[in-house]
Amino acid sequence: MPGNSFGRLFRISTWGESHGVGLGVVIDGCPAGLELDLAAIQAQLDRRRVGQSRMTSARREPDEVEILSGIFEGRTTGTALAMLIRNTNARSSDYDAIKHLYRPGHADHSYDAKYGFRDYRGGGRSSARETAARVAAGAVARQILATMGISLVAYTLSLGQIKAQIIDENEIENNIMRCPDPDVAEQMIAYVDQARRDLDSLGGVVEVKARGVPAGLGEPVFDKLDALIGHAMFSIPAVKAVEIGSGIEAGNARGSQNNDPFIQRADGSIGTSSNHAGGILGGISSSEEIVVRLTAKPPASIAQAQTTVDQAGEPATIVVKGRHDPTVLPRLVPVAEAMLALVLVDCILQQRAARL
Amino acid sequence: MPGNSFGRLFRISTWGESHGVGLGVVIDGCPAGLELDLAAIQAQLDRRRVGQSRMTSARREPDEVEILSGIFEGRTTGTALAMLIRNTNARSSDYDAIKHLYRPGHADHSYDAKYGFRDYRGGGRSSARETAARVAAGAVARQILATMGISLVAYTLSLGQIKAQIIDENEIENNIMRCPDPDVAEQMIAYVDQARRDLDSLGGVVEVKARGVPAGLGEPVFDKLDALIGHAMFSIPAVKAVEIGSGIEAGNARGSQNNDPFIQRADGSIGTSSNHAGGILGGISSSEEIVVRLTAKPPASIAQAQTTVDQAGEPATIVVKGRHDPTVLPRLVPVAEAMLALVLVDCILQQRAARL
Amino acid sequence: MPGNSFGRLFRISTWGESHGVGLGVVIDGCPAGLELDLAAIQAQLDRRRVGQSRMTSARREPDEVEILSGIFEGRTTGTALAMLIRNTNARSSDYDAIKHLYRPGHADHSYDAKYGFRDYRGGGRSSARETAARVAAGAVARQILATMGISLVAYTLSLGQIKAQIIDENEIENNIMRCPDPDVAEQMIAYVDQARRDLDSLGGVVEVKARGVPAGLGEPVFDKLDALIGHAMFSIPAVKAVEIGSGIEAGNARGSQNNDPFIQRADGSIGTSSNHAGGILGGISSSEEIVVRLTAKPPASIAQAQTTVDQAGEPATIVVKGRHDPTVLPRLVPVAEAMLALVLVDCILQQRAARL
Amino acid sequence: MPGNSFGRLFRISTWGESHGVGLGVVIDGCPAGLELDLAAIQAQLDRRRVGQSRMTSARREPDEVEILSGIFEGRTTGTALAMLIRNTNARSSDYDAIKHLYRPGHADHSYDAKYGFRDYRGGGRSSARETAARVAAGAVARQILATMGISLVAYTLSLGQIKAQIIDENEIENNIMRCPDPDVAEQMIAYVDQARRDLDSLGGVVEVKARGVPAGLGEPVFDKLDALIGHAMFSIPAVKAVEIGSGIEAGNARGSQNNDPFIQRADGSIGTSSNHAGGILGGISSSEEIVVRLTAKPPASIAQAQTTVDQAGEPATIVVKGRHDPTVLPRLVPVAEAMLALVLVDCILQQRAARL
Repeated sequence: MPGNSFGRLFRISTWGESHGVGLGVVIDGCPAGLELDLAAIQAQLDRRRVGQSRMTSARREPDEVEILSGIFEGRTTGTALAMLIRNTNARSSDYDAIKHLYRPGHADHSYDAKYGFRDYRGGGRSSARETAARVAAGAVARQILATMGISLVAYTLSLGQIKAQIIDENEIENNIMRCPDPDVAEQMIAYVDQARRDLDSLGGVVEVKARGVPAGLGEPVFDKLDALIGHAMFSIPAVKAVEIGSGIEAGNARGSQNNDPFIQRADGSIGTSSNHAGGILGGISSSEEIVVRLTAKPPASIAQAQTTVDQAGEPATIVVKGRHDPTVLPRLVPVAEAMLALVLVDCILQQRAARL
Repeated sequence: MPGNSFGRLFRISTWGESHGVGLGVVIDGCPAGLELDLAAIQAQLDRRRVGQSRMTSARREPDEVEILSGIFEGRTTGTALAMLIRNTNARSSDYDAIKHLYRPGHADHSYDAKYGFRDYRGGGRSSARETAARVAAGAVARQILATMGISLVAYTLSLGQIKAQIIDENEIENNIMRCPDPDVAEQMIAYVDQARRDLDSLGGVVEVKARGVPAGLGEPVFDKLDALIGHAMFSIPAVKAVEIGSGIEAGNARGSQNNDPFIQRADGSIGTSSNHAGGILGGISSSEEIVVRLTAKPPASIAQAQTTVDQAGEPATIVVKGRHDPTVLPRLVPVAEAMLALVLVDCILQQRAARL
Repeated sequence: MPGNSFGRLFRISTWGESHGVGLGVVIDGCPAGLELDLAAIQAQLDRRRVGQSRMTSARREPDEVEILSGIFEGRTTGTALAMLIRNTNARSSDYDAIKHLYRPGHADHSYDAKYGFRDYRGGGRSSARETAARVAAGAVARQILATMGISLVAYTLSLGQIKAQIIDENEIENNIMRCPDPDVAEQMIAYVDQARRDLDSLGGVVEVKARGVPAGLGEPVFDKLDALIGHAMFSIPAVKAVEIGSGIEAGNARGSQNNDPFIQRADGSIGTSSNHAGGILGGISSSEEIVVRLTAKPPASIAQAQTTVDQAGEPATIVVKGRHDPTVLPRLVPVAEAMLALVLVDCILQQRAARL
Repeated sequence: MPGNSFGRLFRISTWGESHGVGLGVVIDGCPAGLELDLAAIQAQLDRRRVGQSRMTSARREPDEVEILSGIFEGRTTGTALAMLIRNTNARSSDYDAIKHLYRPGHADHSYDAKYGFRDYRGGGRSSARETAARVAAGAVARQILATMGISLVAYTLSLGQIKAQIIDENEIENNIMRCPDPDVAEQMIAYVDQARRDLDSLGGVVEVKARGVPAGLGEPVFDKLDALIGHAMFSIPAVKAVEIGSGIEAGNARGSQNNDPFIQRADGSIGTSSNHAGGILGGISSSEEIVVRLTAKPPASIAQAQTTVDQAGEPATIVVKGRHDPTVLPRLVPVAEAMLALVLVDCILQQRAARL
């Protein structure tokens, strides 16, 4: 189980490097009978791709998805569904000068330690470009969820200390920060522009939610829904913290505050009157909204000179060329949604085995 | 893969309920040839068990571990290693009166939704008592790590807003909060005593570290070391946030601050001069200290009356009897160490397959 | 994934050695809500245990099964179901004299090569005694299958060249060979008695069938139903050949003979007028009877002197003491049924994920 | 785990249909540092492809393999290695007329039962064309084995009742039956020609061996080397029986005949003086030659009219057009080698975790 796969019953295996032929994903376990909306997959990839705004790397890639298998007459067949996204604009020459140097904050040294050598072009397999394959697979998962009345939304909650004050989900796609607070979005954009001028980068927080999730998803003990979400989210490059529901604030709360009282909803179903739990109790979904927050570090690739060492350990100064994002947040939004979608579909299929 | 197992090559499967025969674990993949120190396993269980101090539940269980298989003449044989910890002091009658009520903050409703019914005695399988089996398995993992020069430490970093100001690891086991700052420990203890008098409970943060971890552990993309740690830590009951390295603070940092410059150490090896990454770069260990923080919610079982509903959705008031911890932090310490140990051993074995 | 587990959604993990505390199994993924019939589990263990007739080892073990977890008020809870069968009659002294010698036909040398040493008492983990744990788990699986109208049967088809001429399933449990042909059973028993007098042992064939299996079980490509069955059956000690349907005879057939014509059954469902396929087409069940045959080698433990070497490679003569079966066939019958039951339940749960 | 993947540490996931874009495979866990010989991969595909002789389907496909990821400067990087083989000569119109009919001996009905519908063109995912992806992955595995001194060979042992009398491995590739006995090969070819004239097809047996396999491979209990081989071989289309070592003949043997006496070899290592076990004892490799035999049924697609039913169950007569092999044996040879290579590499990597 060497790491390029995720999921149990809806299981994806991805491949590809930043500067190779492209990125790909095989979905093993896509249920049969889904009328696949190819345009919707492409739309998710378009939300993730570079070059969509000045928030993102200037590398221009259309990231066109091609379905290679697993559909017949427009529907998924239940067999392996493979997709391909070709690389078209890799500029490997940016990396020739620094191939013996270890970029701070990147996997260069760790990969050398692991494998004995590495594909240094754009980070090779460690490049965040691999998330394109996840987004493609996640877009299929979202379509499955949609048939079940489950929807997902994510947005930039804060950039550094600048935090959205209102959550108007209709505003998310109206600004290049994908911030649900349009006024705060303006401040964020100005802050990113300043950071770029400073040859620097910025971290922040993305919040992702799922609605319409039935109670009962997740497995006891080790495959709790929060554990699977934690696994999924920490697998995204740059993520350094994951919170569920009240998250970090749960550490400051008392039990009498943090417990969510159970209530009967108008439709007769059982819910809770608050949602500090973020929709998960004892590792199993409660039917309340799933709420997850990811803290992303500032991108490691910055245009200013940094001290480092080369492969022999000799001190050196490095200037990382290439075309990089000053913040990952707007592009993290669709990736976070994709990962949550993948976890939920997997849990839904698993739940079908729970009872006689 | 229905949730009661964890790990790939060092794989544990646990079983047991709070009020059943006991708790058990099977380790599949324990390498052959380890001279197993049974007393060291028991010592870890003693750190986790109830009744060790007034910080913990008054339930008294010796939690004696029994090895059922997998050793011969004192050494692990490489075949399945099974361990058993019997329940001796379950008081199921505490739960009779509330078996139709959903305890706020607990898995009762979620389990009913998942399985159609539940073992209501002490939470059944959802009880945190299952972590005894993890600690037993983790104690075996620690012994393997020790043979490789890898050590683990965890401690209570903060209780609510009360935070350790100094980290003196020698002090951890000297106070019942397992806080590395003895003065702050006193404040914490007083705060817990107050919360108990208030019939309430408290959350907080545990920090866990591993030292001596070689560079190269973790797998690309989905089984990054941080992803496996995230999975492991969110599988622990009560955990609502997980941070790696600078964690939440990474969201406030600039790349020029957050990047850790590479340096050559005195012994010629390559490290970094700071460790915001928490010992993991690109999902692969860097040879710096692994640093993880867990935020635990306040225990859901509080002695004051709470509003809830019964299984039919009818409003009710519940008073949860039983013998409960006012905070999980001191007992979370050995569980967090155990989970990190399990992840590291698994990654070490996996790493043996990385190169031709 | 180091070998002590089997299955995907109905996943068993077993542990234990021939001369240790006992044998155990954890079922992860047993669906909730099964009214578990403990006596039926014990009945299967009684069919497998030693000492039931002169066909089997003289070791006497009651093989009483104890449920350790996973049931509440008589029903499976959906959480890990653990069972224990204690060893009560191990006679380890039989093995002291030969602990440095490699028993021909046994795993002694292979285990030393794998692990560096071995538990030599009764073969340790490599003992066929481990099949007791499989039979216990398989008995749970059978109860699940029974709720779905699926039944299993196995019998001794041939002992050496002596083959059942009629298949009267009512006769199977009426003779100690579990042969469905009572006259042939007598010949088989005489032949075994002769082999025992010759200090020798005998091989043969067991046939196992499942009825009522719906069409659609098994997964494409690598987890075909026949592949899972092949895996399951070859994991049973002593099995050297596995056949599905016409099996070996398919090699002598022409396509026009071997193809099974599709027909419509009286109830409107679709079946085939012959069943050379053994109920599996393209790796997926067809709704015809599943038919599998296992060839078991003669038991390796024979009472006559054999030439071998010791651990240092020095030539030696070995006389294997202990109490051994002259043929495994009657005890293989319940084990083969158990393994087929485990595969089928797993496929049934997996099939629930096949369609949107 | 829905079936399109195989292996644990050297894990392949395949995708593709007979009449789609092509076939592909992702290898997750290919060790880093292998100097990949692309021509050697192509050579294996050439041995498997159609149109290489009159033994095989007249469909002409070059089956050119393209590496999509996982290599850098000629060496494997340790990350996901993806390969693609395009379909170039699919003739889907052959299948339009029979899309509502169930071809005898094929998966048509089973797939409908499983998924609700199917890609009827050439059998879709159930087509044996998927074995191209296995052969590509197996060719990578063979290169890994070659670095360890392990070699593989397979050949047609018998076609119907016509059996090779001598095993001259140098002759295998000298005749279109891949039979190691050149005289018998001539008889086989004549027999196939006759069957083709009869609009019929033929079954037979392929034997596959591995040499240089160290002792110690395979895991106890459920992942015995023979169990993994059984899984692998039964996953190949048309295989109806698998034998290890003496196989079916073990059923006729006595223990005193079937046991292989241990000896010390000239080089000091321990082996056996006979090899009825086929190189596997107690599920673990013994260092003797691994010997496996596969019985393949006659291909289900025959040119003569057959009785069947349509999807509604109505009786019908079917004539299967398309371009089909009168026997699979010569093309099964490289597929069997590939599957054995995949199992062995996986076990070698797994074995690295066996000891402290």
